[in-house]
Amino acid sequence: MKNKQLVFDYTNLISDAIGEHHGLSLDEVQEYQRHADEFHKALKTDRETERIGFYNLPFHKKTTRMIKEFTKRNYNKFENFVVLGIGGSALGNIALLSSLKHPYYNLLTGKERGGYPRIFVLDNIDPELVVDFLDVINPKKTLFNVISKSGSTAETAAQLLIITDILRKKLGRKFTRNVVITTDPEQGDLRSIAEENAIQSFDIPPNVGGRFSVLSSVGLLTAAFANININQLLRGAEDMLKRCSSPDLMKNPAYLNAVFHYLMDTRRRKNISVMMSYSSPLYYWADWYRQLWAESLGKNTDLQGDPVSVGQTPVKALGVTDQHSQVQLYTEGPNDKVFTFLTVENYRRDIKIPKFKQQYSSLEYLSGNKLSKLFDSEMRATEYALAQQQRPSCRVVFPQINEYTVGQFIMMYQIQTAFAGLLYNVDAFNQPGVEAGKRATYGLLGREGYADEAKKIQAKEKKRLKLE
Amino acid sequence: MKNKQLVFDYTNLISDAIGEHHGLSLDEVQEYQRHADEFHKALKTDRETERIGFYNLPFHKKTTRMIKEFTKRNYNKFENFVVLGIGGSALGNIALLSSLKHPYYNLLTGKERGGYPRIFVLDNIDPELVVDFLDVINPKKTLFNVISKSGSTAETAAQLLIITDILRKKLGRKFTRNVVITTDPEQGDLRSIAEENAIQSFDIPPNVGGRFSVLSSVGLLTAAFANININQLLRGAEDMLKRCSSPDLMKNPAYLNAVFHYLMDTRRRKNISVMMSYSSPLYYWADWYRQLWAESLGKNTDLQGDPVSVGQTPVKALGVTDQHSQVQLYTEGPNDKVFTFLTVENYRRDIKIPKFKQQYSSLEYLSGNKLSKLFDSEMRATEYALAQQQRPSCRVVFPQINEYTVGQFIMMYQIQTAFAGLLYNVDAFNQPGVEAGKRATYGLLGREGYADEAKKIQAKEKKRLKLE
Repeated sequence: MKNKQLVFDYTNLISDAIGEHHGLSLDEVQEYQRHADEFHKALKTDRETERIGFYNLPFHKKTTRMIKEFTKRNYNKFENFVVLGIGGSALGNIALLSSLKHPYYNLLTGKERGGYPRIFVLDNIDPELVVDFLDVINPKKTLFNVISKSGSTAETAAQLLIITDILRKKLGRKFTRNVVITTDPEQGDLRSIAEENAIQSFDIPPNVGGRFSVLSSVGLLTAAFANININQLLRGAEDMLKRCSSPDLMKNPAYLNAVFHYLMDTRRRKNISVMMSYSSPLYYWADWYRQLWAESLGKNTDLQGDPVSVGQTPVKALGVTDQHSQVQLYTEGPNDKVFTFLTVENYRRDIKIPKFKQQYSSLEYLSGNKLSKLFDSEMRATEYALAQQQRPSCRVVFPQINEYTVGQFIMMYQIQTAFAGLLYNVDAFNQPGVEAGKRATYGLLGREGYADEAKKIQAKEKKRLKLE
Repeated sequence: MKNKQLVFDYTNLISDAIGEHHGLSLDEVQEYQRHADEFHKALKTDRETERIGFYNLPFHKKTTRMIKEFTKRNYNKFENFVVLGIGGSALGNIALLSSLKHPYYNLLTGKERGGYPRIFVLDNIDPELVVDFLDVINPKKTLFNVISKSGSTAETAAQLLIITDILRKKLGRKFTRNVVITTDPEQGDLRSIAEENAIQSFDIPPNVGGRFSVLSSVGLLTAAFANININQLLRGAEDMLKRCSSPDLMKNPAYLNAVFHYLMDTRRRKNISVMMSYSSPLYYWADWYRQLWAESLGKNTDLQGDPVSVGQTPVKALGVTDQHSQVQLYTEGPNDKVFTFLTVENYRRDIKIPKFKQQYSSLEYLSGNKLSKLFDSEMRATEYALAQQQRPSCRVVFPQINEYTVGQFIMMYQIQTAFAGLLYNVDAFNQPGVEAGKRATYGLLGREGYADEAKKIQAKEKKRLKLE
């Protein structure tokens, strides 16, 4: 591999390739250079004043060292490592595992995993899922990593209560050895629980929001327990940070992609952003992107406090799988989407498609090719078919999937999202829209102070319109 | 359980609940009764003349019997049952397994699975995935179910070539015992391969398209090898078919939901249809719906051959998980979505949330409740929060998740989709938009007769715009 840097290829976003009606001109992009200069300064200040923390995560050497030491002491003491977390406390972890480890990791033998434990991320509270999950792990031989930035996430708290109750019944006071808590360094009930019970804990920096936290102890501890090289991950992030240190749109992939997506949404009516991974291992990064983009930019109030209604809807898709599910709509349906293809240049493993004994006309063209050739051709074919129908797309090319390129990807998209917040003129770092649902949940569960919410919902439950 | 029928609850689609600007009136729905009468007749004719085959799948008793007999003879001869298929030959299978079997099925012991094999659905050709997959199965002890309606799907053909080559090297001529083919009864190379090599095969009726085929041998063989009760599945489908035998919109959940979605798209600008499963086991039905809705309705030509541009973009989402990822956008972002909540009334398993030893204010309200209460409250809270922001939603309520209700769900959505095709005035049963990509792929792989396509794409590869 000559090039180890991610490549951002925007050929098919441009009017030359897909026409003016749906494509953008570079002039339109350049109009935003002035804003970019200004936003670049603002973000630099936010970084230097530590208002925004994700930029500096690659440099938290002490945290990295603590995580590595803790992992070294504990990785072979447990059969399972289980993340109890949700949203920003789970999506990055899942994506790290699925991109950098074997797709059937938990089916491998302990020896094949190098003595490292199986890893589970339990990011839902469906009672059927949770009870079924308890069938497949022995809690005594399991390390539970409870992750919550605020320390009071209802779902994670419920999981914690269930798991600690089970552990306590089996292990008595020693149950604390099977728990490690990742939360705010000072605030919240999880922090109190860690301190009052002498449970091992790691910090999430207060200036790093959940969806920007995969490179903090949130993601790194899981990574370390899966024997992922966290130094390389952070080095990739650091190198992307350097690459994005220029305010020049035509040099900075994060800023450029932010401007493209913003313009596609606001000037070309693409209210849907499809991230289609032509890589099975990278698919869950599209799920991570889904939170990052949706929760950061989907807002009804701008930075001046005025009402707005913005936010592209991010959609995850998987090549080639979704060619047989979504591509009919993508090519013929409304031209309301901008596509990002995640694609890989050099595969870690490959196989040749052999011949069948007899000859069959519909199979012959396949034989003799590597499977990667077929896979890659389908990506190019889909991109081409979309461009023929004036559908805009870009590529993010991984020279290879490894810790270094994944680290780059994470940092690129985090910077892109922060920058896009300024383009949309909204706060990319809050999520006020989830509060109403939380209050309503508290009400329905009878939490003190939320009785009014409960009454309103219960009134609505009485007059339902339904076919049954 | 008093009620065993799916409930369709449309309270929050109506203007009374969410206002006129985004909600529909029942008068608007009733305007379509005349069309419904007409479309009902048309679909009845399509069914009776066997132009459309999915309606009759519950009555193919001979197929069911063959599948059960084959399964009975073979289920305990193999450690693994592997589906090689994609799109309509995989999505329903995955959803059947994830809704009706243990979520960690392949981690259970053989005994826990009742002697039935582990089950894998390999619905991608990412070379890394395919080669990694070979690490975890012993091909000699594996039954491969190759599924392709046309018998010439490139991805499935490539998988077949790879697997049969491996099997032949290990087993010689006897390799055919490890393969079972599901394809058209007469046409295509897969059919020829089955016949020329005396490989066990099952038919996909020619009048049943891939995305409508889960209740054919496509889904039923996988289900049988997972010890799923296929009679109950078909009985559920049959009972939903009866329930949908009335053209009266206010009695027919499939037609009514089709009209609602059509009006939301065309009169209320909801170009996105989010199916948010508040059930982890039901989540993959949202993925199945994604193909059904997108591929059937995403069209650029109407039934008269005139150009149009229609099709809602279906999106899958998972409650509560996506509350921590998408709900910020859903409540505050553009009001461009209609939501369907899949929800469960009686859970198969449940657990009580215990107390923590010490008291923590942010946990207290949880303790003592069943986990299902928290889960269900979050669904209601999210629905309520969306309705407060004038976002339309409906519920499809499963009295319980079992074969009978899943069968109902499948048939309801298939009928809904066929009916929606007539509302949109498009052919819900073709997919011409995927042909361009197929031709381009053939070109890139050097298949005879497609050189022009290859040249065009290769020319475009030379002039790329990129940051690297």
